[in-house]
Amino acid sequence: MINLYSKISKNKNVFIDELIHFLSYKSISTDEKYNKDVNDCANYLTSHLTEIGLENVKLHKTKGHPIIYAEWIHKPDQPTILFYGHYDVQPVDPVELWDNPPFSPVIKDGRLYARGVSDDKGQVFCHLKAIETMLKTFGELPVNVKVLIEGEEEIGSPNLEHFLIENRDLLSSDIALVSDTPMFSADVPTICTSLRGLVYLEFSIKTGTTDLHSGQQGGTVPNAIHVATDIISQLKDADNRVLIPHFYDDVVDISDEIKKNLAALPFDKAYFLKEAGVKDSVGEAGYNEMERRWYRPTLDINGIYGGYTGEGAKTVVPCQCTVKMSMRLVSNQMPREITDNAITFIETLCPDYADITFKKFTEAKPATVNYSHPAVKAGLDALEKAFNKTPLIQGEGGSIPVVSDFKDILGIETVLMGFNLPDDCIHAPNERFSIDHYIAGIKASTSFFMNLMR
Amino acid sequence: MINLYSKISKNKNVFIDELIHFLSYKSISTDEKYNKDVNDCANYLTSHLTEIGLENVKLHKTKGHPIIYAEWIHKPDQPTILFYGHYDVQPVDPVELWDNPPFSPVIKDGRLYARGVSDDKGQVFCHLKAIETMLKTFGELPVNVKVLIEGEEEIGSPNLEHFLIENRDLLSSDIALVSDTPMFSADVPTICTSLRGLVYLEFSIKTGTTDLHSGQQGGTVPNAIHVATDIISQLKDADNRVLIPHFYDDVVDISDEIKKNLAALPFDKAYFLKEAGVKDSVGEAGYNEMERRWYRPTLDINGIYGGYTGEGAKTVVPCQCTVKMSMRLVSNQMPREITDNAITFIETLCPDYADITFKKFTEAKPATVNYSHPAVKAGLDALEKAFNKTPLIQGEGGSIPVVSDFKDILGIETVLMGFNLPDDCIHAPNERFSIDHYIAGIKASTSFFMNLMR
Repeated sequence: MINLYSKISKNKNVFIDELIHFLSYKSISTDEKYNKDVNDCANYLTSHLTEIGLENVKLHKTKGHPIIYAEWIHKPDQPTILFYGHYDVQPVDPVELWDNPPFSPVIKDGRLYARGVSDDKGQVFCHLKAIETMLKTFGELPVNVKVLIEGEEEIGSPNLEHFLIENRDLLSSDIALVSDTPMFSADVPTICTSLRGLVYLEFSIKTGTTDLHSGQQGGTVPNAIHVATDIISQLKDADNRVLIPHFYDDVVDISDEIKKNLAALPFDKAYFLKEAGVKDSVGEAGYNEMERRWYRPTLDINGIYGGYTGEGAKTVVPCQCTVKMSMRLVSNQMPREITDNAITFIETLCPDYADITFKKFTEAKPATVNYSHPAVKAGLDALEKAFNKTPLIQGEGGSIPVVSDFKDILGIETVLMGFNLPDDCIHAPNERFSIDHYIAGIKASTSFFMNLMR
Repeated sequence: MINLYSKISKNKNVFIDELIHFLSYKSISTDEKYNKDVNDCANYLTSHLTEIGLENVKLHKTKGHPIIYAEWIHKPDQPTILFYGHYDVQPVDPVELWDNPPFSPVIKDGRLYARGVSDDKGQVFCHLKAIETMLKTFGELPVNVKVLIEGEEEIGSPNLEHFLIENRDLLSSDIALVSDTPMFSADVPTICTSLRGLVYLEFSIKTGTTDLHSGQQGGTVPNAIHVATDIISQLKDADNRVLIPHFYDDVVDISDEIKKNLAALPFDKAYFLKEAGVKDSVGEAGYNEMERRWYRPTLDINGIYGGYTGEGAKTVVPCQCTVKMSMRLVSNQMPREITDNAITFIETLCPDYADITFKKFTEAKPATVNYSHPAVKAGLDALEKAFNKTPLIQGEGGSIPVVSDFKDILGIETVLMGFNLPDDCIHAPNERFSIDHYIAGIKASTSFFMNLMR
C-alpha cells in the first residue's frame, strides 16, 4: 500500500493536469446548446477509460446523452464492484459571480476551481486514477470492476433506470460505489448510509376566468391566493408535523445506532446556522437538527405565485395561484403512495368554488445502506488510511435516485464514499475541490478495492 | 327643457366627433413614454374649455401632469357647482386583445370603443357639452360652475390634495359633481352615495440570505413561503371576518334605509356570478352580496411571489416571499389607523426567525354622501328625465379618494352621477360607452344644473 500511496503522491501533477482537461469540457446536460460539448466529453471519457487499461469500453447511446460502460473482469473468485459516476455538470449561471471562467480550471490556495470539479468529475477521477495506478503498478486489479458513467445525472437521470433494466446482466455486481456526497467536514471523512427520497408536485388553484377588481367585486368573489394559502397552512401543524393522512405510517423510528452515529459527529449548530444564513433552525418538534435533516421526512413549499407581482399596487382579486411543493422521504415511505395521499388530501382542502389541477415531477425513493455490510467497513477503513483521520457514518438529506435503483434492479447495496466538502459550492458559482482531497480520494479508492479482496 | 333636449339630440354627431377627437390623445398617465401625449391632451382641453364659453381657463402645472381649471361665475344668488373629472386614461395592455386600436375610436352596435371613453373622457364630455349647449342656447348658465379636470386620476392623484389645499378659495363651491361611477344597469340609472376606502400594503418575509437546498437543509431551516402563508391564513377567520384588532370598531351597521335601497335594486346573483366568471360568491358571513360589495370592509391578498416560479421543479427552501394586500374600508374606518393596526398585527404573527418589511401604498378614506341632500334629489330627477327610467340609489365598492378630499378640504358633498355601465370594460381591452348614454348623459347634466337653480 505504501508503494501505491507514494506513487499516487508522486503523480499528483499529472493527475491534476488530466482532471483539468476533463473539466474543460462544457458538459452541461440541462441545456441543448451544449449537446456537442456533452458528446465530446463522452467521447473523451470513452478513450480515456481504454487508455487507463479498462476493457470492453462502450459508449451506449440513449434517448438523451450517452452512458459509458467499461470493465475489468478477470478474477472469478473475487467480488465485482460497480462504480457509478456522472460526467455531466450543472449550468454555470449566474456566471458573473464566478471569479474565473467555470471551464478554465484554476488552482488557488490548494483548491481547484471549476464547474463540475466536486460534482462529479473530480470524484469520478479519484476512482479512475486509482484503477489506473493499480493496473500500472500490479498489471491487475485486486477485485473485478465495472464502471458506469452517465451524462444525465443533473437532469434526473431520465434514461438510466431503463438502461439498468435492459443491462441487468452486464451490470450484475456485488456492491456499488458512488462518490457524489460530501464528507462531514475536512476533519471528519464519512460514509453516507442513508439518502432521503423526493416527491415534487405543483398545484394550481383557479377561482375564475379573470382577475377581478378588489373594489367592485372584492368581498363577494373567491380569491385564489387565499384558497392556496389556506391549503398550505393546513398541510403542517404547529409542531411542523405533516398532516397528510398516512404520511408517517412507513417512517421508522430513528434507531439507537443512528443516534450513536449522530452523537459522534461534531455538529456545530451556530456554524450550521451561519453557513445557511438563517437566524434559527425550524423543523419537526421532538427532533434535533441532525435528525431532522437526514432521518425525518419534510414538506416544503418551493415556490408560489399568483395575482399581481410587479412593482407597486394593483387592486386585483386574483383568479389563479400556483404552488410548487416537495416532500423529502425517509425509511420505507413510497413516493407514489405519498404523492397520491398528498393529492387526495389537498383536493379535500380545496373548496368547491375553486378548481385545482396538479402536475407531478420527480419521484425518488429514499435509500438506506445496511450499516454492517462489509463494504461499508471497507470504505471506513479506506478513508481512515487515506485521510489519516477517524471516519464516521453520516446520512444525507438529498436524494440520489440511482441508489434505490441499484437495490431494486440489481439487488445490490451502495457504498456512498464522497471526498468533497459541504462548502465546495456544488451547483453554485466558484465550485471547488481540495487538491489534498482529490489525491487522498485516489488513495482511498485503491484501499477500498484492496479491502474488498477476499 | 324640451328645447335643450332636442338641441342636444340634433347635435349628436358633432358631439360624437368632438369626443372622438378628445379620445385620440394617448393620455396614459402611468407611463412616462406618454408624457407628451398627456400634455397635448391637457393643452387641447384647455383651449376647448375656452371655446365652449368657460372663463378664466387655466392649465395649472404640478409636479406631475397638469390640472385644468375653468369657471363660469356670474350669479351671486345661485349655488356654485364644482365639476371634477380626469383626462388621463389607463394603459392599453394587453393591446393584442383590442378589436380596434385603442386610440382610433370606432362605433359599433351603438357603442363607441376607445381607451378612456367610459373612464372618464366620455363622461367629462357629457358635462362639457351640457355646459356648451346651455351657454349657446341661453347665453348663460342656470347656476355658477367650476370645472376641475386632472391628469393623474389613474395613478392615484398624487398632486390633487395639495392643489385642493392651495386653492381652497378658488374652488369653494356648494356641491361637487363627479361622473366616474357606473349606473346599476342600462335599465336602472343610479346616484351613488357611498364609496369604499382603500389601504394597500406590501410585506416581504425574509428568512435567510439565500435560497437553500430542500434536501441538504430542508427540515432544519425556515421557509419564507410557509411564514407568509401562515400569516395570511391568520388574517381572516372561517367566516371571512378580518382578525386585525379594532378592524370593525368604526364600521357602522347597515341602516334600514340602505337595506331598503338595496332591496329596490334588481340584483341577479346568477348573472353577477356569470359576469364575474366565478362559480360562487365568497365573503363575510351574515351579509348578502350587495351588502358585502358596497357596505362591508374587505381584506384581499392581491399578489404573492416567492421561491422558484419557473417551469418544472427546483428543490429550494425559499428565503423570501412578498405579499401584496389591500383592504376596502367603509363608514368611519380611518386608513392610517387600519394600516397601523394591520402592520402591528402582522408583525406579531411573524416568528422571530423571520424578518419582515412593509411598504405602504394607497390610503383612501371611505366616503358617504348624505342621502337627503337636495343635490342628490336633483341628480335623481335629472336621471329620470334624461333616461326616462326610474332612478335609484346605489353604493360602490371601489374608491374615489377625491370625494373624501372634497368633504375634508372644501367642506362639500359630492353627487356621484355616472352614465356608463358595469360591463363597459374600463381598465380592460375594448373599453366602450353607449352613444345613447353619452347623449342622455349630456341631457341629464343640463337637467341637473337646472334643478339646482334656486
